Amino acid sequence: MTDPFFSSDTVRSAAPLKYVQTARVGAMDLELGGRLDEVTVAYETYGRLNDDRSNAVLICHALSGDSHVARHDEADDAGWWEIAIGPGKPIDTDKYFVICPNILGGCRGTTGPNSINPATGRRYGADFPNLTTRDVVETQRRLVDYLGIECLLGVIGGSMGGHQVLLWATVYPQRIRGAIPVATSARLSSQGLAFDVVARNAILRDPNFCNGEYYDSGNLPRVGLAIARMIGHITYLSREAMREKFDANRTSPRDVPILFEKKFSVGTYLGYQGAKFVERFDANSYMVLTTMIDLFDMGPTLEDLIKAFAPATCRWLFISFTSDWLFSPEESQEMVHALILADKPVSYCNVTSGCGHDAFLLEDDVDRYGELIRGFLASLTGQGEPEESLPDDDAGYSPTSMFSPVRRHRLDYDRLAELIPPDASVLDLGCGGGELLARLKQRGLGRAMGVELLEQAIVTSVRRGLDVVHADLNRGLGSFADGQFDWVVLSRTLQAIVDVELVINDIVRVGRRGLVSFPNFGYRRLRRMLAEQGRAPESDQLHYKWYNTPNIRVITIADFEQFCHEKGITIHRRIALDTEAQREVHEDPNLNADLALFVISR
Amino acid sequence: MTDPFFSSDTVRSAAPLKYVQTARVGAMDLELGGRLDEVTVAYETYGRLNDDRSNAVLICHALSGDSHVARHDEADDAGWWEIAIGPGKPIDTDKYFVICPNILGGCRGTTGPNSINPATGRRYGADFPNLTTRDVVETQRRLVDYLGIECLLGVIGGSMGGHQVLLWATVYPQRIRGAIPVATSARLSSQGLAFDVVARNAILRDPNFCNGEYYDSGNLPRVGLAIARMIGHITYLSREAMREKFDANRTSPRDVPILFEKKFSVGTYLGYQGAKFVERFDANSYMVLTTMIDLFDMGPTLEDLIKAFAPATCRWLFISFTSDWLFSPEESQEMVHALILADKPVSYCNVTSGCGHDAFLLEDDVDRYGELIRGFLASLTGQGEPEESLPDDDAGYSPTSMFSPVRRHRLDYDRLAELIPPDASVLDLGCGGGELLARLKQRGLGRAMGVELLEQAIVTSVRRGLDVVHADLNRGLGSFADGQFDWVVLSRTLQAIVDVELVINDIVRVGRRGLVSFPNFGYRRLRRMLAEQGRAPESDQLHYKWYNTPNIRVITIADFEQFCHEKGITIHRRIALDTEAQREVHEDPNLNADLALFVISR
Repeated sequence: MTDPFFSSDTVRSAAPLKYVQTARVGAMDLELGGRLDEVTVAYETYGRLNDDRSNAVLICHALSGDSHVARHDEADDAGWWEIAIGPGKPIDTDKYFVICPNILGGCRGTTGPNSINPATGRRYGADFPNLTTRDVVETQRRLVDYLGIECLLGVIGGSMGGHQVLLWATVYPQRIRGAIPVATSARLSSQGLAFDVVARNAILRDPNFCNGEYYDSGNLPRVGLAIARMIGHITYLSREAMREKFDANRTSPRDVPILFEKKFSVGTYLGYQGAKFVERFDANSYMVLTTMIDLFDMGPTLEDLIKAFAPATCRWLFISFTSDWLFSPEESQEMVHALILADKPVSYCNVTSGCGHDAFLLEDDVDRYGELIRGFLASLTGQGEPEESLPDDDAGYSPTSMFSPVRRHRLDYDRLAELIPPDASVLDLGCGGGELLARLKQRGLGRAMGVELLEQAIVTSVRRGLDVVHADLNRGLGSFADGQFDWVVLSRTLQAIVDVELVINDIVRVGRRGLVSFPNFGYRRLRRMLAEQGRAPESDQLHYKWYNTPNIRVITIADFEQFCHEKGITIHRRIALDTEAQREVHEDPNLNADLALFVISR
Repeated sequence: MTDPFFSSDTVRSAAPLKYVQTARVGAMDLELGGRLDEVTVAYETYGRLNDDRSNAVLICHALSGDSHVARHDEADDAGWWEIAIGPGKPIDTDKYFVICPNILGGCRGTTGPNSINPATGRRYGADFPNLTTRDVVETQRRLVDYLGIECLLGVIGGSMGGHQVLLWATVYPQRIRGAIPVATSARLSSQGLAFDVVARNAILRDPNFCNGEYYDSGNLPRVGLAIARMIGHITYLSREAMREKFDANRTSPRDVPILFEKKFSVGTYLGYQGAKFVERFDANSYMVLTTMIDLFDMGPTLEDLIKAFAPATCRWLFISFTSDWLFSPEESQEMVHALILADKPVSYCNVTSGCGHDAFLLEDDVDRYGELIRGFLASLTGQGEPEESLPDDDAGYSPTSMFSPVRRHRLDYDRLAELIPPDASVLDLGCGGGELLARLKQRGLGRAMGVELLEQAIVTSVRRGLDVVHADLNRGLGSFADGQFDWVVLSRTLQAIVDVELVINDIVRVGRRGLVSFPNFGYRRLRRMLAEQGRAPESDQLHYKWYNTPNIRVITIADFEQFCHEKGITIHRRIALDTEAQREVHEDPNLNADLALFVISR
């Protein structure tokens, strides 16, 4: 089948896997009470384990994946994450020793329902016990022991694989330095759960299923499993992706040998996906693994999540995709929220993508999620990238960037650095690529964290080794706790904020001290523009016109001081600067300063 | 089953319907080539047909509906749209004669697959021909003839029923005065189509289906139809709705007698919905009707839609729901876009709702979609509501409303009325409740249309009998054609626009003349605020502070004039007003006027 119409990450050969190794990891007593007398784990490895065994990265595959994550040589079949893993790729096998085991309960080498039950000499079938994600992680932990690895550099997984990452970090905190949960959640949404139930019902009620005892009958529950796969496949794609692929020729079905409706192109596509899946996947594994997904639950409330994450000691990088509706960005954001409140080092990026849940398997957005992973792994090894290799903030992330074409010395950064003690914890709002935090870190800093809206800036911050969270300041700082940071910095961004009151209140709630800087529209030259020329004041720090500036608030030093007075906010320090003359202003700052820094608190 | 957990519009009795009447409407040659020798239509009516037979409203039901749209008396069972139809309700049976037929191909009285085929004396089953929505509308047209009604006041339908509304308006334009398509589309999304295909595959491959010949076998394809219903049910609900209903107690399944998985609460809910559905619905009807939905297609391109809508002569009211992902708001917006370009009188509101596709059947949002329907029907009868019964725009829709607590005479409205000839066509951007357009109409106006962002304001505009479209000005006027209106008015809103250039360019593209008014920040008092007090200028027309004003653009008359000059926009007229002194300003307007009106064109 070479028709590109059918191209999909999910169409993969059921060929026996070369390069697969196996490890016997002994008997297991399972979380839900069952027991497996002998467990074998099938796995593949890539790259070389270094001498101090510190460069191992564990990959946890999703529902339909297996141990073949990438090709081992030119002649080898492509793996399910070929785009992310290999020499020079984001998970660089020239640097890292990559391990990818097949999942417990699966059907591609690791012990599962279609394995021989040593107790009976027959396949488990209906006798296979119920599994939990914790059981899966236990087998992986035993594999890591077997390989003689004390601590994993990173554990990475998407979707169901993400659930395993979450448990690795919380159940074996000492054995993982970095966790990268991709497109996952702390518990499946009720919508996603509902689709799983319907899928299982289709298998359960397939007359060939026989309650799981079909291996010797010669009749597999093909229809039920194919229906299940079709439902799943729809949930992996976004509406946009389906529109692009099928809207144009919706009534041009392909002629495929399937037992299903062939009226519409999308119908033959799904029918084909379903039929292919039946060739390489086992219905009992589908039942066991989807039930495991549906049972995974770190708790419904934020408090539950904070408790669940408490044991974790690793650094975190969460990645979600904007068009993913099976594991939605909100579900990643809930976990990031909990980790922030639990004071864990966490970064997060909601990658703009049209590909839906499958985005993490596709090439379309790898330029961002791949680089995030690459940068995060590098920072874990302590080999963060050198400053000179990173773009400056005046590369133009920030609409409020003050840099004029000719770069000017950042007088306000000097003052900031003087005000903030070297051991203080700092939250930088609108941190861009992280230049300010990096600079503060150079001369010493406590916990440092950034909040940024722009994806590319987040990638740069992560490459700098910073913890940065993807969020919109106009939604406030709801994710942060009262007094969580010594200092909360809002540098030259206030004038671009829609909900000023919300943001300022949150700054003095989250920070023991708030440090706010903004261009002063009371500045002499700007006053003249309106008073004498009758023109809207234009700060030349902000090279925009009245009709296109992102700086929507006209603020003067006097305005801000009255605002603080009215809102019961204490002003501890005011620093007024004339950035053109590169000097601090002391007399009539509202008239003579073009930039003001305020240190405030509630 | 009294457990409120199962409460759902879709759980309805299969009881034989009292009050059902039937009409024999003869033989039909069908669009796809089949033939039905004798068609019977089952229907119910409510209210009284008035003497000139001008108050008839046709209701087109959705996939699982029937003729019983509302109860006929206290003792009667509730209907599927009880909340919208009855005495004093939005579709007021004290005023209107309501007709609701069961659909051709259905299984609740009108000819369908389970009806006796006169040719064989046996049920049609597999012999039942393929139907199109056009065939359905043809039977409804014959019913309307049979009832002696020449022209329907309105045709209303949601989802699949909306498809019928679209055809009524375009196939029988002379026989309908108002069309209300609710939560529908010009063609099903590929995602929705995909779910239908999988649902049909579940039925098709149910061993009891026997290609539709199951009526005499004693074994119905219960599993297939139930699976189909479960899939459908998920798509009718929003993610939020499912979260609210199931997240809290996801592992508290109800003990219901079903043949499906009972592990999770959502599973028992869906299983129960599926089982109930099998009792009252026929699998062959499900196949025929969903295929009909999937085949419905007014064309993939905007051009196709414009052509398809060309014959229509009625007024239109489109309603969509923000959380509906089966028939998404974008799909309604595409049709509204086409109708605007086809110069048809259309109103549209995207009702904020958390209920998903089912929203149009539920009480939650009836305060808005119900009132829209009520107001629209009233305006069709010419009995638009009296001005005094309607809220003023200073009721506070518009964040830019200029009214000070003490209401001031609208000097700028006088000037507007003088500038715009009585026969001109006018598009009012940010029209609020439609006060300006209503006022212009009173003294005569050509085609009038409004664009508004706020739902309540749209309801008021519709009650005023105006055509108003729900849209965000910051997205521009992409829906409108070059030179489509004589005048495009942007009254006191420019200062709240984010993308000024986009909006101004669109104003002079869509209007032969643009009329733009804004508060002038060059006004003496405002200059002084900055120059002398060093404070951000605050127009007292716009009672806000620098930190919370929605008016984010500081514009002076001089700024705007230079902008027009730089962008190649011609200024034909400038009217400068001092609204405090209630006079027009002639000398140094930029200093002495607090409000400016400009007449511009490209």
